[in-house]
Amino acid sequence: MTVEFICVGTEILLGSIVNTNAAYLSEKCAALGLSCYYQTVVGDNEERLTFVLKMAMERSDIVILSGGLGPTEDDLTKEAAANVCGRALKMHEPSKLAIERFFAERGTTPTDNNWKQAMLPEGAIVMENRNGTAPGMIIEADSARLILLPGPPRELIAMFEESVEPYLAKLTNQVICSKTVKICGVGESRAETMVKDLIDAQQNPTIATYAKSGEVHIRVTANGEDKKAALKLVKPVVKELKSRFGNAVYSTEEDITLEKAVAELLSANKLTVTCAESCTGGMLSARLVSVPGISDVYKTGVITYSNKAKRRLLGVKKSTLQKEGAVSAKTAEEMAKGAALTFKADAAVSITGIAGPDGGTEEKPVGLVYIACYVKGNVIVKKYQFTGTRDMVREASASAALSLLRECILEYYSKVTFGKEE
Amino acid sequence: MTVEFICVGTEILLGSIVNTNAAYLSEKCAALGLSCYYQTVVGDNEERLTFVLKMAMERSDIVILSGGLGPTEDDLTKEAAANVCGRALKMHEPSKLAIERFFAERGTTPTDNNWKQAMLPEGAIVMENRNGTAPGMIIEADSARLILLPGPPRELIAMFEESVEPYLAKLTNQVICSKTVKICGVGESRAETMVKDLIDAQQNPTIATYAKSGEVHIRVTANGEDKKAALKLVKPVVKELKSRFGNAVYSTEEDITLEKAVAELLSANKLTVTCAESCTGGMLSARLVSVPGISDVYKTGVITYSNKAKRRLLGVKKSTLQKEGAVSAKTAEEMAKGAALTFKADAAVSITGIAGPDGGTEEKPVGLVYIACYVKGNVIVKKYQFTGTRDMVREASASAALSLLRECILEYYSKVTFGKEE
Repeated sequence: MTVEFICVGTEILLGSIVNTNAAYLSEKCAALGLSCYYQTVVGDNEERLTFVLKMAMERSDIVILSGGLGPTEDDLTKEAAANVCGRALKMHEPSKLAIERFFAERGTTPTDNNWKQAMLPEGAIVMENRNGTAPGMIIEADSARLILLPGPPRELIAMFEESVEPYLAKLTNQVICSKTVKICGVGESRAETMVKDLIDAQQNPTIATYAKSGEVHIRVTANGEDKKAALKLVKPVVKELKSRFGNAVYSTEEDITLEKAVAELLSANKLTVTCAESCTGGMLSARLVSVPGISDVYKTGVITYSNKAKRRLLGVKKSTLQKEGAVSAKTAEEMAKGAALTFKADAAVSITGIAGPDGGTEEKPVGLVYIACYVKGNVIVKKYQFTGTRDMVREASASAALSLLRECILEYYSKVTFGKEE
Repeated sequence: MTVEFICVGTEILLGSIVNTNAAYLSEKCAALGLSCYYQTVVGDNEERLTFVLKMAMERSDIVILSGGLGPTEDDLTKEAAANVCGRALKMHEPSKLAIERFFAERGTTPTDNNWKQAMLPEGAIVMENRNGTAPGMIIEADSARLILLPGPPRELIAMFEESVEPYLAKLTNQVICSKTVKICGVGESRAETMVKDLIDAQQNPTIATYAKSGEVHIRVTANGEDKKAALKLVKPVVKELKSRFGNAVYSTEEDITLEKAVAELLSANKLTVTCAESCTGGMLSARLVSVPGISDVYKTGVITYSNKAKRRLLGVKKSTLQKEGAVSAKTAEEMAKGAALTFKADAAVSITGIAGPDGGTEEKPVGLVYIACYVKGNVIVKKYQFTGTRDMVREASASAALSLLRECILEYYSKVTFGKEE
């Protein structure tokens, strides 16, 4: 079954907005097993819209239109679609009531224009819009099924997930499930090599890798005739990935970020943590503090950008700074130990490096970063060589610090456990 | 003169990537005075590509294609275009040499496939690709001009700016210039109201507002027959905007961010600064530290997330925390004063607030944030009520803190200056 998209809006043609709706719809429809061969963008012009709509209906089974359902005269997607399908527009009472309710809830009243949005093609399946005033609709015409969605992404996405996805799933007799295996501390190219055989052999489920700063996400997507069947295809692949990547997998849940996984690990082990940052300037702390409820484990952090601050706040030795330099394994170690001691934390992470663009030497080039991690008396220091802009080096450092902290906690407790068992 | 875009790539149809090329090309062409009525995305399929290309050539004067110029068999944009225009493909020696050089510089050798990229349609204007191996080309066919560009945005943008823009400017007899007026500390809707008359009356130059966290950017774009003529149209509008927004305009330069403007202001006045953050958890410091060379003015920052840390590191009074609470004007003030005193800085900014999603009360709802700014003995505290998610509240807080710091420094020095003059 084929689908194509027509995104309506002069603002897209002018480049004022990026057409993220097309990408969203494409991904969703591909996962549903629909084949998409064309996407078109056209302005709010009835003649041109009618032209592309007729052509799309000739060559595709399903045509999804987005945008042009607003209350103004410019908005004419619905009018063009009704016209092409030979359907009259009629006042749809439930939509009229919904519009009234929408404005009442916001303490305002609709303008005359707004009632235009409740005029819908006869016989259309109407889809409620919980985030705006334009209802969506499905017109089951002879040559193709037309699905009309509002343009604002927030409205379009909610409506697609609530109403369009179940409708299409019924049509294609397919349900999609996906799981993301989230990996930290493994480079992108190494991760890709480790799963190349799975990617090469993929069909259903499909496997795709996505790299983000310091992390690799592997998304496993399957379709089946119901959720159970699709999940049954996903599960063994997720299991295989977990066994290949071991402890580097920090989560398979949608809403768990690396910082959240680290926060949960700290919390589960009743560990408090502090951060002492130089080149990252607070990025590491900011990521931890992004997790709601972090106050149980995170109390204090410092940005010791100058040598003086490193000495005064963390007790880094003058001799260390003089002999080894601020960017050195020894300084990183003393920063982490000093932070744990000063702020009475069970764990501490320190970052010191050369983020660039200036300040690099042959011996210590831009991108050189030392990260130290202290957990209950044990300290590990690692040396990293990152590439890219100042911000890329800093972001990679913060991500690596979270990975290292996670690794050190896991290691500490596995040792403790082994010790007990022996 | 009309233009339309055909973006070629199965990965766009699958939703794996967002079509940012179309937005980029649209904005550029609109500024050049070209009218765009259609954009199409089609996969790497010769039949379908040929179909949309023929149609585009019938209805538009210029057709810009992006993608499908790679070395693999899948890539067939050039083949389809040559075919439609009745041009044979011939080895283009300078492109062959450029490919050799590209690989030599990277210490690798081209594969057999790579030579395919040097096979170009007879009579085409060839455009060098400094960032990749696929040359671009312009085919001046009878019915339309075809412009073929590589798909990767980095390659496409560089080639457009170097070769396509001058080519189109000559065709349209137009050159574009734009300036962005960057404003902080003024809300989006207030800024829009303040320029509504200018936007309503716009033609050449055009005026567009873009909101980002805590900032509003107003872009003024004009076209003229040469750079001087275009700039002459831009200048008075920029001047008018500057006079309307006054001190809230922090820059009109492309590469100046708010944090950079603040860093320059600190540096110009030889002021050191420190930050004491609670709910933002280091975001404010991280933004300042993103500026290269910040070490002259920024030495130390702290994240005092717990009450104990606020007391211990900043000397916030126990009684203040008990009576007023951690999120209060008094606490913010004591944090800023304490930070300046403890870390011997000329200026200090503190942030304390309720980022949510939990922890709000009727009296102190989620989004309530106090920011205090200390500059050489003077302290100002401001109360903010932000909306949105935890991260949105935190980002808005960090931006507001930068704005407030800038405002306080400007005010401090204007007072000093007035004092001297009187």
